[in-house]
Amino acid sequence: MISELILKSSKELWATCIPHLSVDNVIFGFHDTQLKVLLLQTSFGKQWLLPGGYVRKDENLNDAVKRVLKERTGAENIFLEQFATFGDVNRSEAFFKDYPDDLWHKQRFISTSYYALVDYTQVLPLTDDFSAICTWVNVEDIPELVMDHSLILERALEILREQLIYKPIGLNLLPKEFTLTELQRLYEAVLGVKLNRGNFYRKIMKYGVLIKLDNIRRGGAHKSPDLYKFDEEKYTASLKTYNW
Amino acid sequence: MISELILKSSKELWATCIPHLSVDNVIFGFHDTQLKVLLLQTSFGKQWLLPGGYVRKDENLNDAVKRVLKERTGAENIFLEQFATFGDVNRSEAFFKDYPDDLWHKQRFISTSYYALVDYTQVLPLTDDFSAICTWVNVEDIPELVMDHSLILERALEILREQLIYKPIGLNLLPKEFTLTELQRLYEAVLGVKLNRGNFYRKIMKYGVLIKLDNIRRGGAHKSPDLYKFDEEKYTASLKTYNW
Repeated sequence: MISELILKSSKELWATCIPHLSVDNVIFGFHDTQLKVLLLQTSFGKQWLLPGGYVRKDENLNDAVKRVLKERTGAENIFLEQFATFGDVNRSEAFFKDYPDDLWHKQRFISTSYYALVDYTQVLPLTDDFSAICTWVNVEDIPELVMDHSLILERALEILREQLIYKPIGLNLLPKEFTLTELQRLYEAVLGVKLNRGNFYRKIMKYGVLIKLDNIRRGGAHKSPDLYKFDEEKYTASLKTYNW
Repeated sequence: MISELILKSSKELWATCIPHLSVDNVIFGFHDTQLKVLLLQTSFGKQWLLPGGYVRKDENLNDAVKRVLKERTGAENIFLEQFATFGDVNRSEAFFKDYPDDLWHKQRFISTSYYALVDYTQVLPLTDDFSAICTWVNVEDIPELVMDHSLILERALEILREQLIYKPIGLNLLPKEFTLTELQRLYEAVLGVKLNRGNFYRKIMKYGVLIKLDNIRRGGAHKSPDLYKFDEEKYTASLKTYNW
């Protein structure tokens, strides 16, 4: 199926952007014990994909990725971390096989990919001309994605799991105040396994990044659990520590 | 200074490679308690740089980086790991400012960078038409490098230090059989600090990747130290473990 929108955008992209280079974003959010990813569905082919785009001729790569995310999802001020560049022949060309050969999008593209951990409540997904849907999807229920986007998402998840081993996570994925159970659910959602409560408590306390709050959450039927917040200074320092 | 060699190569590169994309390699070796990096010096301007090159139109990114390394240094069968893509405006363009504007090399390039840990004795540096020198340089004595290559090297070192926290290293950097002191020197060289011998011994043993050998190294004036080798199966498994 040929999209007029794609044909129209091709000419402008040749004039303004660097050919052969694209960026893709894997945006993780956490809500209701579920790890989620922000996905788009194309307005023309009803296909699912990661929010991505191209690099302008006068734009740093790291700035392009922020602009692309804002334009395609409305999300701003998100800390994006580069994690891999995907460069196999035919990773994206075939997706545009029905189009003329001089179409911008049909050229070979190498994609530099970024991921972010965001507060689920701070991102209100928006659509644009190219996307009929922009929404959060549970990582356990990811639909088929276009091109090599499933591979990109899988690699982002691997990186997230790897980082979990030696760095705390949660600062941007949880609300400001949270219970240890909520933090444990986040770790379980990322790792995809259930953790023993006692072991989890001991390990998380070893980072020294949690502050126990005096107030507790009201209203539950059970004994109200203690609330914690991150000590942001210690949290940030622990991300930069290379103590062996 | 204009190099005829660069002018000549420009036309061929436009015909065979993807514009705007380059690859750079940071090759680490270890010898005589020193961590070293493989560097080239240009034959025309006597400037130091990392071995790098371009991606052919029909070539996967990960294959390009291996070919480039072989062509420029003679090194083969090296396991290269991608670590970052550098894409600031003007990271490389200014280096070719004296050349015509349509020169291949003078276009904006985004560089995907790889690093490798190699057995120092297995790489015999070679030069080519573009490089007058190809040699190992101690990481403590790195000369000024062209473009943003100092930044690329610094980032590779950071990644190596980060990995050291949760993964063993040494399999490709040390000879097959080694003493614990030699292994400790490697860790110290990467981290840039002295480590306490007892602490080092306890931590390294926790990985469970070392096998103590029956033979010992002969010939020293002092008591011969025990020799170890890596249990390659357990070593490889520990690289893939995401146990939190």
